[in-house]
Amino acid sequence: MAGTKGYKIATLGSHTALQILKGAKDEGFQTICVATSDRVSLYNRFKFIDKLYEISLFSDFPKIEEKLIKDKAIVIPHGSFVAYLGIENNKKMKVGYFGNKKVLDWESDRVKQRKWMQEANVPVPKRFKKGDKIDRPVIVKSYGASGGHGYFFAKNQKEFETRIKNFKARDFIVQEYVIGVPLYIHYFYSPLTKTLEILSIDKRYETNVDSLGRIPSQNQQGLGIEPSFVVVGNSPLALRESLLAEAFQMGERVVATSQELMDGGIWGPFCLETIITPEQKFSIIEISCRIVAGTNLFVNGSPYASLYYDKEVSTGRRIAMEIKEAIRTNKLKKILN
Amino acid sequence: MAGTKGYKIATLGSHTALQILKGAKDEGFQTICVATSDRVSLYNRFKFIDKLYEISLFSDFPKIEEKLIKDKAIVIPHGSFVAYLGIENNKKMKVGYFGNKKVLDWESDRVKQRKWMQEANVPVPKRFKKGDKIDRPVIVKSYGASGGHGYFFAKNQKEFETRIKNFKARDFIVQEYVIGVPLYIHYFYSPLTKTLEILSIDKRYETNVDSLGRIPSQNQQGLGIEPSFVVVGNSPLALRESLLAEAFQMGERVVATSQELMDGGIWGPFCLETIITPEQKFSIIEISCRIVAGTNLFVNGSPYASLYYDKEVSTGRRIAMEIKEAIRTNKLKKILN
Amino acid sequence: MAGTKGYKIATLGSHTALQILKGAKDEGFQTICVATSDRVSLYNRFKFIDKLYEISLFSDFPKIEEKLIKDKAIVIPHGSFVAYLGIENNKKMKVGYFGNKKVLDWESDRVKQRKWMQEANVPVPKRFKKGDKIDRPVIVKSYGASGGHGYFFAKNQKEFETRIKNFKARDFIVQEYVIGVPLYIHYFYSPLTKTLEILSIDKRYETNVDSLGRIPSQNQQGLGIEPSFVVVGNSPLALRESLLAEAFQMGERVVATSQELMDGGIWGPFCLETIITPEQKFSIIEISCRIVAGTNLFVNGSPYASLYYDKEVSTGRRIAMEIKEAIRTNKLKKILN
Repeated sequence: MAGTKGYKIATLGSHTALQILKGAKDEGFQTICVATSDRVSLYNRFKFIDKLYEISLFSDFPKIEEKLIKDKAIVIPHGSFVAYLGIENNKKMKVGYFGNKKVLDWESDRVKQRKWMQEANVPVPKRFKKGDKIDRPVIVKSYGASGGHGYFFAKNQKEFETRIKNFKARDFIVQEYVIGVPLYIHYFYSPLTKTLEILSIDKRYETNVDSLGRIPSQNQQGLGIEPSFVVVGNSPLALRESLLAEAFQMGERVVATSQELMDGGIWGPFCLETIITPEQKFSIIEISCRIVAGTNLFVNGSPYASLYYDKEVSTGRRIAMEIKEAIRTNKLKKILN
Repeated sequence: MAGTKGYKIATLGSHTALQILKGAKDEGFQTICVATSDRVSLYNRFKFIDKLYEISLFSDFPKIEEKLIKDKAIVIPHGSFVAYLGIENNKKMKVGYFGNKKVLDWESDRVKQRKWMQEANVPVPKRFKKGDKIDRPVIVKSYGASGGHGYFFAKNQKEFETRIKNFKARDFIVQEYVIGVPLYIHYFYSPLTKTLEILSIDKRYETNVDSLGRIPSQNQQGLGIEPSFVVVGNSPLALRESLLAEAFQMGERVVATSQELMDGGIWGPFCLETIITPEQKFSIIEISCRIVAGTNLFVNGSPYASLYYDKEVSTGRRIAMEIKEAIRTNKLKKILN
Repeated sequence: MAGTKGYKIATLGSHTALQILKGAKDEGFQTICVATSDRVSLYNRFKFIDKLYEISLFSDFPKIEEKLIKDKAIVIPHGSFVAYLGIENNKKMKVGYFGNKKVLDWESDRVKQRKWMQEANVPVPKRFKKGDKIDRPVIVKSYGASGGHGYFFAKNQKEFETRIKNFKARDFIVQEYVIGVPLYIHYFYSPLTKTLEILSIDKRYETNVDSLGRIPSQNQQGLGIEPSFVVVGNSPLALRESLLAEAFQMGERVVATSQELMDGGIWGPFCLETIITPEQKFSIIEISCRIVAGTNLFVNGSPYASLYYDKEVSTGRRIAMEIKEAIRTNKLKKILN
């Protein structure tokens, strides 16, 4: 416990909170979960959570911020932070916040995110501008689509024109539909050691598309099912070792480019959402600039993390290890903001 | 070993026997496997099995029961107990039996099981009675269908009428076909501490439906493949954390309702077989009132079990831990019958 | 370290090198990775690799062989050894080589491999000879097809005749297309203890076929996607326990038959690539006579390995354990050649 110098690890009760707080506890930190009333019963079940602050709505987070500051809490953001608090409220936080807030604008703006990936020489799907002839299958996504709604497919110009008429989103992108298998790579970049790790790999479990294949083609026809991509879980994967070199290099280019584009660059966990084509080429659909839910599969370790560590290291625990090292070397300012 | 006071853990050589006996051994128990002749070679391979009683047929189990009683054996039932011995022979057992035998009738009778789930306010698929108009896709299952045979799909009234003519089962149910992804939640309820744990999560690996998606639609057409749902394996999953609160609450309502409906209620391991829809709603297809085969993925721990325990706890090992605690606190009668 | 008597474990930087060298390190061996220039950056990341020998091309391996011999290196072959060096260069190696080189000819020749499986009474798909009437769905594979290219399907004689015209391969086989789910069993046979273990089980993750099911049937039609089977990853499975007895027995028959067919027989890791049909019958598509990439999922242990060992044993580590035991008992000659 001495190694933590009284700092505590806190997060919102959602997304990857269990993993983050379990990992923090394993590294000797006291832990705090900020949970909405409907989730209190969930987080109360776990002994590794030392304090539970109840709020009515996630947006009430600012109300307990002073308490967190008094607690010497360090907040670990995850997917629910931007989803429920919005970027501005993340930026305004005065409590210690792990990760670079300057990354938030680059991640949330599709144009900026694409510029980042392209400058990093990371392969991205072709994007169609208004008026471009659609010469291949496309996926049309509404801006800020979350949780898998707000998509449609079109296999050509004609189908695109028919379906766009019924699409409610005002802002959307039209993107090449890359045919291949999805694979999500969970990275961790340490600003203290300047090294990048791949900690684990998953694919999402999406309803209903991940059950469609179980319905024979002839039965699908009549059911008139519309595919949906709502993520409700994850399953583990290993990546072909010959693709691992490229996976590391892509991650390193993403980090290096971020250091040029935004002051300080990205650090901590991030995820590249890839499609791998039959030519064994990655196509990067999106970057998530924080811990992703797929890491929840690896609370008790992963085949990749065990290449670096002789203990069970989840991404949540890896974050706590980084914070502990920063405390030990008096570099906490370097990793918080 | 002292903690076990000479009690031994025994089970039939099938289903989850390796996990159960390995977990028992890890907790310090002597172990007994009762195996049919064709399986002796399998169970002889493992050092954590201390004794192997050979029988010709599973139905010969009563012949070695006296020996088990002399051994101070506690029997852990799994899926093969009801499948091979039948409910009545389970009830008649005089050897110590982990779990509540009163649950057997409620589980095996589809009407009673549905009543249980509905009183527990657990969402179940719509059921069609004879003469009801079929206004959505349905799955038709024969009573007591085991191992995945005895099913058919119909997308509407007309298709139902055509296919029911060739269906051999006398007794069957007609149930809404819920479109979404399957996910099996492995619970453990401790009657000693009155707490419910989620120990792991899986999906089944079913032949041939889990390979259909790999055959392009145009090829499927001509092959005329009939889907089958025979479970031959399992694969691991993590559940979206925001659905975990509901998963725990459903489990707790199932336990609480069982205590009203049957003397003592359900304890030990059970599994809710769910479908998750694109609206992120659970639909419960079935309850299994004992250890399920999906837990075999987690002999060396799971991301969920590690939230409670600092060792590798499978469901099999969790059972042994409960028995050991009951021995220590002189409450063995509370958990056996 | 004393237990290793100065022997080092070496392999080519590819395929399962990380697992093999990590496992060797865990058992106390010094480790050597022989990597091509483009992979040096990958293998330099890992502390468990003690030495890294850089070569320009895999085919330059003979150039550093003398160095390996001076190092007292024992080479662990994996999938890239035959793929990149060819059988003859494997046979010519003078450095200590784990596994029986006599197996290479039997594995690489489809006729011999089939004879081996059939004499072992292992079920294999029906094979059609030139002129045979094709009375069921078939898969047509070019000889030496690697990485998943060079396949096509035909559902009957007519479709076969149409598609064979555009097939570029000169040598090919026409094989029954078995409808069921794929499952890969990772065996390890110890020539020291004469026992067979099942260490883990996976299925492959293949682009694009493993994403086809996520595209609704009506959308597939227009896209005109040709299925491809390029392995880019793996995902873990558990096998139904009632099929485990047969899985062990098949493995043992394969080992026993190999001892009749080739001097010394097969030892160390091998994999049976199976399809399991709805009748719960295995059909064996291929044997791989060495460590397979699917074992990379289990660097930190597997539910099967933990039935034998109280530590995290991957196939890579299991190999190192066997070598260490051979060193201890002065039987290294028995397992190298």
